Amino acid sequence: MPLKKPHNGLQNGDGSHEKDSRHFGNGSQQQNMDLNDHEGEQNLPSVLEVSNDTPVVNGIGSSLANGSLNLHSTVKRKLDGEKDYVFDKRLRYSVRQNESNCRFRDIVVRKEDGFTHILLSSQTSDNNALTPEIMKEVRRALCNASADDSKLLLLSAVGSVFCSGLDYSYLIGRLSNDRRKESTRIAEAIRDFVKAFIQFKKPIVVAINGPALGLGASILPLCDIVWASEKAWFQTPYATIRLTPAGCSSYTFPQILGVALANEMLFCGRKLTAQEACSRGLVSQVFWPTTFSQEVMLRVKEMASCSAVVLEESKCLMRSFLKSGLEDVNEKECQMLKQLWSSSKGLDSLFSYLQDKIYEV
Amino acid sequence: MPLKKPHNGLQNGDGSHEKDSRHFGNGSQQQNMDLNDHEGEQNLPSVLEVSNDTPVVNGIGSSLANGSLNLHSTVKRKLDGEKDYVFDKRLRYSVRQNESNCRFRDIVVRKEDGFTHILLSSQTSDNNALTPEIMKEVRRALCNASADDSKLLLLSAVGSVFCSGLDYSYLIGRLSNDRRKESTRIAEAIRDFVKAFIQFKKPIVVAINGPALGLGASILPLCDIVWASEKAWFQTPYATIRLTPAGCSSYTFPQILGVALANEMLFCGRKLTAQEACSRGLVSQVFWPTTFSQEVMLRVKEMASCSAVVLEESKCLMRSFLKSGLEDVNEKECQMLKQLWSSSKGLDSLFSYLQDKIYEV
Amino acid sequence: MPLKKPHNGLQNGDGSHEKDSRHFGNGSQQQNMDLNDHEGEQNLPSVLEVSNDTPVVNGIGSSLANGSLNLHSTVKRKLDGEKDYVFDKRLRYSVRQNESNCRFRDIVVRKEDGFTHILLSSQTSDNNALTPEIMKEVRRALCNASADDSKLLLLSAVGSVFCSGLDYSYLIGRLSNDRRKESTRIAEAIRDFVKAFIQFKKPIVVAINGPALGLGASILPLCDIVWASEKAWFQTPYATIRLTPAGCSSYTFPQILGVALANEMLFCGRKLTAQEACSRGLVSQVFWPTTFSQEVMLRVKEMASCSAVVLEESKCLMRSFLKSGLEDVNEKECQMLKQLWSSSKGLDSLFSYLQDKIYEV
Repeated sequence: MPLKKPHNGLQNGDGSHEKDSRHFGNGSQQQNMDLNDHEGEQNLPSVLEVSNDTPVVNGIGSSLANGSLNLHSTVKRKLDGEKDYVFDKRLRYSVRQNESNCRFRDIVVRKEDGFTHILLSSQTSDNNALTPEIMKEVRRALCNASADDSKLLLLSAVGSVFCSGLDYSYLIGRLSNDRRKESTRIAEAIRDFVKAFIQFKKPIVVAINGPALGLGASILPLCDIVWASEKAWFQTPYATIRLTPAGCSSYTFPQILGVALANEMLFCGRKLTAQEACSRGLVSQVFWPTTFSQEVMLRVKEMASCSAVVLEESKCLMRSFLKSGLEDVNEKECQMLKQLWSSSKGLDSLFSYLQDKIYEV
Repeated sequence: MPLKKPHNGLQNGDGSHEKDSRHFGNGSQQQNMDLNDHEGEQNLPSVLEVSNDTPVVNGIGSSLANGSLNLHSTVKRKLDGEKDYVFDKRLRYSVRQNESNCRFRDIVVRKEDGFTHILLSSQTSDNNALTPEIMKEVRRALCNASADDSKLLLLSAVGSVFCSGLDYSYLIGRLSNDRRKESTRIAEAIRDFVKAFIQFKKPIVVAINGPALGLGASILPLCDIVWASEKAWFQTPYATIRLTPAGCSSYTFPQILGVALANEMLFCGRKLTAQEACSRGLVSQVFWPTTFSQEVMLRVKEMASCSAVVLEESKCLMRSFLKSGLEDVNEKECQMLKQLWSSSKGLDSLFSYLQDKIYEV
Repeated sequence: MPLKKPHNGLQNGDGSHEKDSRHFGNGSQQQNMDLNDHEGEQNLPSVLEVSNDTPVVNGIGSSLANGSLNLHSTVKRKLDGEKDYVFDKRLRYSVRQNESNCRFRDIVVRKEDGFTHILLSSQTSDNNALTPEIMKEVRRALCNASADDSKLLLLSAVGSVFCSGLDYSYLIGRLSNDRRKESTRIAEAIRDFVKAFIQFKKPIVVAINGPALGLGASILPLCDIVWASEKAWFQTPYATIRLTPAGCSSYTFPQILGVALANEMLFCGRKLTAQEACSRGLVSQVFWPTTFSQEVMLRVKEMASCSAVVLEESKCLMRSFLKSGLEDVNEKECQMLKQLWSSSKGLDSLFSYLQDKIYEV
């Protein structure tokens, strides 16, 4: 039931409220009227209430000074907001509606001073799940960013989920239609998506606002700096979902997390909190949700003041000897997924698991 | 002074006490009559005393439903039992005596639903120390497990020690007899033992109930998931014992622990607690001793419900590119040990160190 | 304003005060008369004052029994000394003056029982910064140590800073003189310095007493065991200073710290405390500043009691497969620095940054 129209105090204003326009969901803020019911607001001390005139300064998307993003919403700030992951579609649309240079459907791309900002903001899937089409948009955005004069890339997400991985309802739908053709198509989409990260030459900073699952977590080691909100968590339950690892996680996870933890994540679906992911090396640093986007922006802007040559050459030094190895791993992982999906046995196993889950929910 | 006869309430009952039969030493439980003296029981509040009729539900070995293992012992539960590592041989024998499908002498192999369970339970060495004969038994068990329909392997130990590494009294005895011949024989036994782990294609889960020393710790990174009891600890004092690293630890330890800590372990014999080993990546997760085996069993059974193809292919993706490298390392490490043992100088150095230790004890 | 003469209670005594002669700056001790001004001593309770007759037992340099180092100074002990990094040149000179077998200018080399001790103690740069000349001295000392009968090498520093990396004022001076020639000369000096660490065959133990910056931090993973005082910290702000990584950190840092943290250090200049560096694997263990040198000495002496063959062969096993890779990385990194320094653009960027900093200070 996504609303496509602006609502509830959100205006299309262009510039008038520029300085107040930071609004970017990391789960700690909701819109006043819609979320009252499950907020338990009566329990919050009134001092936490933010008046209608005071916008929340809490977002990445719109803290970008040269953008034309304008959100002037009446919001209620929830400081103890760990419990609610509300996937507020309307918020995303409102970000997108006001985005002037938008040429994508499921991501928002913003050209900033010295860097490109890609925001996952999927309209065609839930919780920023990835479909071949969305992965293609990201690839296209990466391709543009590699050619322009930006020095680095910032990847983040709109909403309270960073990325929930492959879209399994899409997967089931397509594979039950035409197993042979679709398994190849989807596996190749993943391969090309992952390859685009492997080959991207400028530093990639990722800001993880919330849960990062499956492919959404697997690609993190292919990025260069990973900052996470305290609310983020990480899970790659491939074996549990009857899948083999993707996103080069079969190589990068043991390297970073150690064999034992990597296997526990990939085989048993072990969930890592932001702090655990940080202490084990998947994440560089964890920030408090309410200041997460400011902290990230501050650092990204400072990085973007560095010499472009130094940034690109440093990344080249760090990655070049890994690149061909990662491409091989990616190729093998996607080959294996294709085999699984095109075999009736592998598919049955996947279907029966996923359908159980769907009925469960 | 191992007793080979059942004693003290242990019965050979087959099935009658099936539901009560969980008993598996991780050091927190001892048998009533034998251990009273050094227990300091008078200091324990009486509420901790478990009546003779209440078996301890605390073990891996016998929580396996389809086994015929029956231990009905009168035990005293010690909740603060960190201080005593009593290597109660009788406990092991009682496990073995009741084991119906036992075809090994120093290990117990149990075919479970979806997985194979190998328990180190050495009769011919102390503290599950490894001799060429025991290593051969493990290899044989791995070979069987690789060929049968089990999806994964669980490796654990009977008693309160996981594995104390190479049996040095055996080593001294043999090498002083015929240096040249025995150095080759023992080094090759190690090589083949380690190789069996490198080449094993199904996931290996290890449950570390207590100390894991030398080769017993070195092989852990060759396994896939490592769960440890809070009571476990890890030490590989190769240089201190005048040995060079084995079990591929010269490669895997720096990879997992970082160069600095790996070297401190291998050169200075730095001891890692279970928590340290976990925070540094050698161990996936640490569990409370009293519930350790249940936690492990729960997870292993869930893993065993996964698709066999997915488990094996995932492991293949994660390990294949490492396999030949590890085999080289293993070959070199064992070559080096052989050289040390066959040179009079290396041997003297080893002897003088080990004999000092033996006299010390 | 370095004083080259003994002063303030420091005597050239040879042996008379041997047992009292431990004095080695890690920042927690200063000499009485000189540092009164900025000590804020009036705030310290008098119980912390150490009488003139009580030497501080707190140093590495002179706790070496067979040396002829004799420092008998009146010192004031500051227990809460985290805030002051006083680079007391005189202390260093006093160490050097009493050093009998000194053949170097900016380092002190001591031949101990079973090991060689190299102390960074730069006279020609501040804070143990590295110039091509100093790096050449270290190389020469490494070369000597590799050929003599010592079993391992201990590397530490005099003063309260371990090493502040490349000497940037030297760099600016030389590069502005003759960009083309000097960029080659300095890059080659770095290459050969780093290569000497890569190729050194005996174990290297590093004792980090205070800040380790840039190249001074980058070379740590090329050493084998890294012990740090609680006062140590680590920073490699290459990109910030408009440089590309050196010392093989582009390879070793991601290996040890994980991609994300490595990049945050190299790109954003993230500073690691001793504890953080330890929990992430750069450092093996952290010791309390006041007992740091004793702890290190104890362990180094124990290591030096091991068999030389075992030490060298263990290191060989651990490093051999990495050596050629590291040499390639080193070559590439230095090639890149040379290119940066010889291009007018790279140089301008470096100059403008460094000059800003210098004026700032």
